Amino acid sequence: MQTSFQIETQGPALYEFTAQVARWVQSVGSDGLLTLMIRHTSASLVIQENADPEVQTDLLAYFDRLVPPSSDASMRYLTHTYEGPDDMPAHIKAALLPVSLQIPVAQGRMRLGTWQGIYVMEHRLRPQRREIAAHFA
Amino acid sequence: MQTSFQIETQGPALYEFTAQVARWVQSVGSDGLLTLMIRHTSASLVIQENADPEVQTDLLAYFDRLVPPSSDASMRYLTHTYEGPDDMPAHIKAALLPVSLQIPVAQGRMRLGTWQGIYVMEHRLRPQRREIAAHFA
Amino acid sequence: MQTSFQIETQGPALYEFTAQVARWVQSVGSDGLLTLMIRHTSASLVIQENADPEVQTDLLAYFDRLVPPSSDASMRYLTHTYEGPDDMPAHIKAALLPVSLQIPVAQGRMRLGTWQGIYVMEHRLRPQRREIAAHFA
Repeated sequence: MQTSFQIETQGPALYEFTAQVARWVQSVGSDGLLTLMIRHTSASLVIQENADPEVQTDLLAYFDRLVPPSSDASMRYLTHTYEGPDDMPAHIKAALLPVSLQIPVAQGRMRLGTWQGIYVMEHRLRPQRREIAAHFA
Repeated sequence: MQTSFQIETQGPALYEFTAQVARWVQSVGSDGLLTLMIRHTSASLVIQENADPEVQTDLLAYFDRLVPPSSDASMRYLTHTYEGPDDMPAHIKAALLPVSLQIPVAQGRMRLGTWQGIYVMEHRLRPQRREIAAHFA
Repeated sequence: MQTSFQIETQGPALYEFTAQVARWVQSVGSDGLLTLMIRHTSASLVIQENADPEVQTDLLAYFDRLVPPSSDASMRYLTHTYEGPDDMPAHIKAALLPVSLQIPVAQGRMRLGTWQGIYVMEHRLRPQRREIAAHFA
């Protein structure tokens, strides 16, 4: 069974869509394996803590330091910069963070831990529509 | 077919559980796909070399430099620090390293390479009980 | 359904094999899930942009700065250095980048985004033969 999730993003942030996924999983099956794959090379899928929003703020701050904009002096060696200073850093972050996630499902519920939420992590500055391919079997 | 593996950890290290997984896989099936997912946001699953223990020492040393404790001057921007200096760095490491792994299985054996072992990589200082959800189909 | 892909590498670079995978997928099934797993701990599987080759150049340049050779002064703490200055850095890159990928398949085609290609990212200097285990169901 397959579907797609569409997530509208407005700049770098984590966008949770756990509830949407949970609803679809419950509607299509009982026991099995859920796979999510983001169809882009400048945004990521992450499973992270959903209790304290400061975790998300800190994650974004960390990754912006680990992969600064190409306008930063330390990143002058980058060449793929046509679409702005967030272009190549977005590809690098997309290499460092997951493009696909797998979650076992039992009795119609994803076996996530208590604090685990599913997010699109957007790396580009401008608004984007992100598509996530989903598969359950 | 699903199960859970419980791994007790005593601080940052790599804890191998390849043999446990191999035993379960052999007991439940022949050809298929194994998925493992760790149900936590402060520990990771990694496939790494199991021949020389120095690889593990070096991996831990590298990641501690890449993501220093929040008590480190370079990490003062972090805000999610209630549970100690290893709290937010553990979430960052959990974002950088895999939360789920997939391994094709043939004739009851995981198709791992000669030197590949399966590990829980613990990022927290205090002892933890980590649960890994497993799915085979 | 399972198979293996063999990719010959000649030093650090991204080696695309999207077309080979697409051909196999089309020959074995219609709707399902494709899993790829690299059977090595010093090379990675990545999904990245296949439009502009500068993305690959920049990715390699970034990861060489993030994980310098063990001959670099900043990496003197590494101990697993028997096989040369690219040995332990290759294991670290293999921990940071994916060992397995999952791609939903519909009507015999992988649901990749327009710009997404599948690559082996080689981390070792010397020529290698890399094996990727593939599973479709």
